[in-house]
Amino acid sequence: MSTALCPGSFDPPTNGHIDVIERCLDVFERVVVGVIHNPSKSPLFSAEERVGLLEDLLTDHPRVEVGSFEGLLVDYAKTVDARVIVKGLRAVTDFDYEFQMAQMNYELANMDTMFVATSPVYSYLSSSLVKEVARLGGNVDSLVPPLVAQRLQEKFYG
Amino acid sequence: MSTALCPGSFDPPTNGHIDVIERCLDVFERVVVGVIHNPSKSPLFSAEERVGLLEDLLTDHPRVEVGSFEGLLVDYAKTVDARVIVKGLRAVTDFDYEFQMAQMNYELANMDTMFVATSPVYSYLSSSLVKEVARLGGNVDSLVPPLVAQRLQEKFYG
Amino acid sequence: MSTALCPGSFDPPTNGHIDVIERCLDVFERVVVGVIHNPSKSPLFSAEERVGLLEDLLTDHPRVEVGSFEGLLVDYAKTVDARVIVKGLRAVTDFDYEFQMAQMNYELANMDTMFVATSPVYSYLSSSLVKEVARLGGNVDSLVPPLVAQRLQEKFYG
Amino acid sequence: MSTALCPGSFDPPTNGHIDVIERCLDVFERVVVGVIHNPSKSPLFSAEERVGLLEDLLTDHPRVEVGSFEGLLVDYAKTVDARVIVKGLRAVTDFDYEFQMAQMNYELANMDTMFVATSPVYSYLSSSLVKEVARLGGNVDSLVPPLVAQRLQEKFYG
Amino acid sequence: MSTALCPGSFDPPTNGHIDVIERCLDVFERVVVGVIHNPSKSPLFSAEERVGLLEDLLTDHPRVEVGSFEGLLVDYAKTVDARVIVKGLRAVTDFDYEFQMAQMNYELANMDTMFVATSPVYSYLSSSLVKEVARLGGNVDSLVPPLVAQRLQEKFYG
Amino acid sequence: MSTALCPGSFDPPTNGHIDVIERCLDVFERVVVGVIHNPSKSPLFSAEERVGLLEDLLTDHPRVEVGSFEGLLVDYAKTVDARVIVKGLRAVTDFDYEFQMAQMNYELANMDTMFVATSPVYSYLSSSLVKEVARLGGNVDSLVPPLVAQRLQEKFYG
Repeated sequence: MSTALCPGSFDPPTNGHIDVIERCLDVFERVVVGVIHNPSKSPLFSAEERVGLLEDLLTDHPRVEVGSFEGLLVDYAKTVDARVIVKGLRAVTDFDYEFQMAQMNYELANMDTMFVATSPVYSYLSSSLVKEVARLGGNVDSLVPPLVAQRLQEKFYG
Repeated sequence: MSTALCPGSFDPPTNGHIDVIERCLDVFERVVVGVIHNPSKSPLFSAEERVGLLEDLLTDHPRVEVGSFEGLLVDYAKTVDARVIVKGLRAVTDFDYEFQMAQMNYELANMDTMFVATSPVYSYLSSSLVKEVARLGGNVDSLVPPLVAQRLQEKFYG
Repeated sequence: MSTALCPGSFDPPTNGHIDVIERCLDVFERVVVGVIHNPSKSPLFSAEERVGLLEDLLTDHPRVEVGSFEGLLVDYAKTVDARVIVKGLRAVTDFDYEFQMAQMNYELANMDTMFVATSPVYSYLSSSLVKEVARLGGNVDSLVPPLVAQRLQEKFYG
Repeated sequence: MSTALCPGSFDPPTNGHIDVIERCLDVFERVVVGVIHNPSKSPLFSAEERVGLLEDLLTDHPRVEVGSFEGLLVDYAKTVDARVIVKGLRAVTDFDYEFQMAQMNYELANMDTMFVATSPVYSYLSSSLVKEVARLGGNVDSLVPPLVAQRLQEKFYG
Repeated sequence: MSTALCPGSFDPPTNGHIDVIERCLDVFERVVVGVIHNPSKSPLFSAEERVGLLEDLLTDHPRVEVGSFEGLLVDYAKTVDARVIVKGLRAVTDFDYEFQMAQMNYELANMDTMFVATSPVYSYLSSSLVKEVARLGGNVDSLVPPLVAQRLQEKFYG
Repeated sequence: MSTALCPGSFDPPTNGHIDVIERCLDVFERVVVGVIHNPSKSPLFSAEERVGLLEDLLTDHPRVEVGSFEGLLVDYAKTVDARVIVKGLRAVTDFDYEFQMAQMNYELANMDTMFVATSPVYSYLSSSLVKEVARLGGNVDSLVPPLVAQRLQEKFYG
């Protein structure tokens, strides 16, 4: 059974993330969504909240599992028995950074990374931009799933 | 069974192509290598020669099949029952062109494309550069498999 | 009255071109669409055909004029009394080439160029890719206006 | 009357900013320069100081207005009755970020963004680099207007 | 004595080429300008004409030599005893291609390549764009040395 | 005698840095490695430690000197009598930033910068990525010299 690992901060998940995960499901039999838990950062949503959001959003996809990890991505990939890491690419600045990470992960553990082009309609989406728009009172209904829009509303305007 | 299609001109196959195909074999159960046969171009090696070269080079990989096609890539992908197209990416100029093609192929047939970073040691390799070096008498032994080096020698210095 | 010049080969016009022209109409009072007539190239559609196609496609926009030109773009811009050249940008390779042209046109005639981001849904569209898809029998109905789809069909399958 | 909004941090304004504003004046009848006031950042010059600097620098241009804003750029654009946002582009990293913002602003409010190439002689200029050079005692006389050079001197060496 | 090789087509030499050569003279004791003679291309100026133009343009620089070559660049570099190849870089599309060539030349012969940023004022200049402008009757006096402007005039309008 | 200055943070030095320094030694007679001492940053290794590491790593290269500096790079370049600054380039995001710095340094002091392509095998290496891998317990033995690997081990797991 071929397993792909989709890692990310998902702070919060956007429609672009869901698009990448669904494309993985077209190609791989099992998809693990791995939430990066970095204790030295201050995310808007805790790792637990992000895992919970993703589980709710992906509840209709039985071949998806959601987890979180600290430490090296390649170690987590082995733990969940993933044969490949899959990342979405939106633009050239993504490209440079993600390629650097991919080469490093191959060097560290012979772990391959594959990139998928996110749908053009999500090409401008990022979690940080979504948070900025929500914080400033903009409407994010077309950018994130309804559940995430609601949680952003609660975080900023409680 | 998950099948990936690796399309390309392979005129001639380089060590970078072989690297991409072998990475696909790490991830997918069956890999189809699809040689583009474009009647309006003048390749150095004919489509038949390129298919033959790839079959010889990949003879130890039972999960690989080699074919050639004219027409739309997405039609060929369906013919060979591929769930995803896989392309190697070396650099930013690749990125723009390949993303354009990937978005088009998704638009035309909902066919996903995944990109894999070629090994850094092959990042500067291209078939056209290899041909240019060979034509000018440079040594291509570290750039292509021995069989391809020999055939290039025959083509240019017969 | 502020006039913008939208130059291009338009061989053939795509939905992306129409998007750029309509964005210009949001911003400028008069838009001149300038078809480049380069006698040393072999377009699929003649300059006259391209002008005719654009006139038909833009017939509902009274503030648009369509013309064609040989020679320097900056000379044509002056002829049609344009204050600025407007080009669509899709991706990074566009960027480099178009910036080079923009700087040159400023150097030659103090003519400014402004760039507009095409809609993400058209980010992968180009006339040459559309022609290639149509030539190979692919469906271009979502890529070009119906009139252009029909003319492509006639050109390739007459 | 066509109004363009030139937003930015302008901390401090450089010769490149002035170049972009003057190019807008070639094309648009009225130009609003909008200083971003982000309470969570610590600029070198306060929003009031930056507005004051720009007003002094642009005093000879009667068709320019200077203001500042918090909140969403698209809301401010509507407030000042701007038909289009105009940004200078210097290089590829600008491109990715600015295109992301442009697509988002179109999604949020159908607000178009146009990009203008800054003059090549200012292509390497940024406010943060100017501040760094001034802080380390370098001569910034060719990089910023004399008034800004003087204020930087006062800030760092008072 | 440190020798740098500046290779190129120089069809024709532009102000940007002269800028790169003069920067090399600031850094290296001897600079060889190597005109690529590719029999399969159809340059506007013959290799002999290009060598002649460069010799005339660089006559005041006693530490510069001009030559031409067919075959591999790294072989020519050894012939002229160059320790390093130097290329001007203008923009990102240059970057990808030139890096590919640099890595290949290191692979073929351990020959290093160094890149120098051309002056911003020449960042948009290329020989092919200069030829296009001249062919269409534009004024190239600020783009190329007077001698080159005159020869372009003769070529196109004899 | 031609002197090149290789500036950087070197926090810590990687195999990629050593590669760039050794390429400089192929081309220039004397190479000064300049460690940037920025009091407002919090490096993992102090400027003294970084100078010490580099001196130990480069002890076999008599034509290399190691120093550290605060203030403007161009001032330090003059102090050490360097004719040119040399930087390694790995990828496109490097390119934009480094070109901006190069143009600024030429503007400030007519100081040229030359760029050298790091070996492809080091193209994904950066000090910050090495620190991240080491901090998370990954093996960095193929990324940095043994001495640096040991010091990273001491810093994080001392």
